[in-house]
Amino acid sequence: MADVLRVALAGLGTVGGGVAKLLAANAALIERRAGRRIAVVAVSARDRSRDRGFDLARLAWEDDSAALARREDVDVVVELVGGSDGPALTLARATIAAGKGLVTANKAMLAHHGLALARAAEQAGVPLKFEAAVAGGVPVVKALREGAAANRVARVYGILNGTCNFILSKMEAEGRDFAEVLAEAQTLGYAEADPGFDIDGVDAAHKLSLLASLAFGTRPAFDAVEAHGIRPVIAADIAEAAALGYRIRLVGTAELGPDGLFQGVHPCLVPLGHPLAHVAGSLNAVVADTDHAGRLLFQGAGAGEGPTASAVVADLIDIARGEYGAAFGIAADDLAEAAVAGSGERRARAYLRFAVEDRPGVLAEIAAAMRDAGVSIASLIQRGVPVGGGGVLVTIVTHEGPERCVAQALERLRGSQSLVGQPLWMPILE
Amino acid sequence: MADVLRVALAGLGTVGGGVAKLLAANAALIERRAGRRIAVVAVSARDRSRDRGFDLARLAWEDDSAALARREDVDVVVELVGGSDGPALTLARATIAAGKGLVTANKAMLAHHGLALARAAEQAGVPLKFEAAVAGGVPVVKALREGAAANRVARVYGILNGTCNFILSKMEAEGRDFAEVLAEAQTLGYAEADPGFDIDGVDAAHKLSLLASLAFGTRPAFDAVEAHGIRPVIAADIAEAAALGYRIRLVGTAELGPDGLFQGVHPCLVPLGHPLAHVAGSLNAVVADTDHAGRLLFQGAGAGEGPTASAVVADLIDIARGEYGAAFGIAADDLAEAAVAGSGERRARAYLRFAVEDRPGVLAEIAAAMRDAGVSIASLIQRGVPVGGGGVLVTIVTHEGPERCVAQALERLRGSQSLVGQPLWMPILE
Repeated sequence: MADVLRVALAGLGTVGGGVAKLLAANAALIERRAGRRIAVVAVSARDRSRDRGFDLARLAWEDDSAALARREDVDVVVELVGGSDGPALTLARATIAAGKGLVTANKAMLAHHGLALARAAEQAGVPLKFEAAVAGGVPVVKALREGAAANRVARVYGILNGTCNFILSKMEAEGRDFAEVLAEAQTLGYAEADPGFDIDGVDAAHKLSLLASLAFGTRPAFDAVEAHGIRPVIAADIAEAAALGYRIRLVGTAELGPDGLFQGVHPCLVPLGHPLAHVAGSLNAVVADTDHAGRLLFQGAGAGEGPTASAVVADLIDIARGEYGAAFGIAADDLAEAAVAGSGERRARAYLRFAVEDRPGVLAEIAAAMRDAGVSIASLIQRGVPVGGGGVLVTIVTHEGPERCVAQALERLRGSQSLVGQPLWMPILE
Repeated sequence: MADVLRVALAGLGTVGGGVAKLLAANAALIERRAGRRIAVVAVSARDRSRDRGFDLARLAWEDDSAALARREDVDVVVELVGGSDGPALTLARATIAAGKGLVTANKAMLAHHGLALARAAEQAGVPLKFEAAVAGGVPVVKALREGAAANRVARVYGILNGTCNFILSKMEAEGRDFAEVLAEAQTLGYAEADPGFDIDGVDAAHKLSLLASLAFGTRPAFDAVEAHGIRPVIAADIAEAAALGYRIRLVGTAELGPDGLFQGVHPCLVPLGHPLAHVAGSLNAVVADTDHAGRLLFQGAGAGEGPTASAVVADLIDIARGEYGAAFGIAADDLAEAAVAGSGERRARAYLRFAVEDRPGVLAEIAAAMRDAGVSIASLIQRGVPVGGGGVLVTIVTHEGPERCVAQALERLRGSQSLVGQPLWMPILE
């Protein structure tokens, strides 16, 4: 145990560089806590010559990241290459096959291949850890895997994508529209040039599938996540929601019920009294509703160099201490394969927003579609607010009812000449 | 590893009964997660005949809790006897001496004897775990010991006593005074018949000393905590704070700076924009300001049968998994002995409340005392609100400055004929 834990870093971008810098900056403290020194001995990245703010000279270099797995002077490989397949997956498999520990921040890879990798790691008797894959510096993987392990979890949900939360918070604070705020976020580096993974809910869905596995002891089931993003949200939605006492947040929700496992990512109306309504900017927050510990909330920075590096190094410290076990907290072969519960039978109140032609009969048409689909309207507001495309805004809040009825109502209105553009449906978080 | 983990429960009150019930209710799930069965095999409590809602018949009974430590059929003793010394400490020492694992919810014992017990446990090579000792079901011991282990923590603070938060929340919601709400809380079972440990800040101070040790790698130093409670807070303070944009919360704060370790428990003014302002009722919340992960927040139920049992069983699962190490995350002999930093040099804005005689010259006297002590007044409000004892209310908000100046000003006013009763000083959380 007194030996050095020898680490190879694959990927020296923001996170990889952050890990190297954190291990250097807090070396003495980390050694005290880990009970042994944790040292980077080898690295791999695309470009050897780039200045990364730390010295590569004393580290072994591999052009091919998979070569790190074959090095005899390495105990643990930290995979920060990214991407669900390709070099990241090749490296992960090679690392485990070589009997080395694997630490990764790669939610996409784990969402798709987590079960197989966990099984391989268990068979090889090596650690596979991924605290950085969900909610950045917030130790929520550990909280679910260990802290709440005595509980049956009914539901795990939260704000899992900092980019979306940054955009929604800024739209809210400044009354501006999505496209404008996205462009600014891209300029500031808070959103990628290709922002689809973030704003269409894919990244949140990756993370949600991992949280669900940890919370329920089920296999990661990314393909079963119903993912919606924030592109359709307009400034007027945020204003209407505020007038009703809500804020709009992109919420990923996983719930294990009698019908199976439901997993969905949606922009939601969050009541001001709920802690998620107060999660602003690029923060992440995860809530677990448990049978004994009650409602647990974990909140903090969900991305960025320091927070993600903090999570990676926490995993390394666990490994250095010898405090680790099955990746998802349960032997991979014992993770249950849950039936998929679709959103149809889920009961919620809902917010519906239409942009409509400003002429007689339009409200009657909408109201009739709701009635015919069995949707009970709690409030309907037409303020005469003009929206893009020449329509005016109509918002409806429904009484609680099954989501399939709302979907039917929207289906009935599809192609209606009264509507300008697509209606938007958002569930209301209770 | 496939063997049963055999547990003895010492104490069958709310928490002990909760642990037995939780282990039974979620037995299958816990076995999957722990990798082995966790079974209560022996118990000890004051009264064998009392109905506790679960069956004692198949469990070995010991009248003397320390006898549990000597049983050959026990692997881990769960100490839920309570009290910093006496039978709890005797049992804890005997358990470790017998080479068995110890799980405890006893913050008082750990605040006083945690270092010695941790050292003994390490020497004996047995686990000592205490997740339930701080913030009930919220896995904050684990979050600091492991999740944030890569970080230098600058400050750890939070709402650590659910009874006080329940009382303050209720005073706030209903505009009622302390004594009245306390009496109601006692009737409802939210406050003890002898509430001193809770409302005078002692319980929060116990917990704070443990958090500080985990966060900073220092020895638990309960005697160095400056503890103040909520008895002096009146309804008018809460109303004044609200008018200024604050809520009053009992906050424990530990901070490691160049002068040493400061630890204090105070009622504080918390700005509405801070997450602690939204922690209502009997919830607990802990914030850690870290150098890499940023600000982490953990929130949930801080007490009660289910949450506390959840934390105890999480410790048992860690032990069953073999995932445990030094109690405070660092070998006991390596925990640093920090110098004590008193509150005097701490800089904060402050809220001061006086009940004064309603006659000429009183404000001049107060203002002069502030000036002479070097306290800069940001606002002074006398609304003519009568308070108990025949005075009217004067509240001052100071500019940022050292606490010793405020203390000097209050010292200058001690015994003044202008004052009715004791003034109240509360720091403002920034």
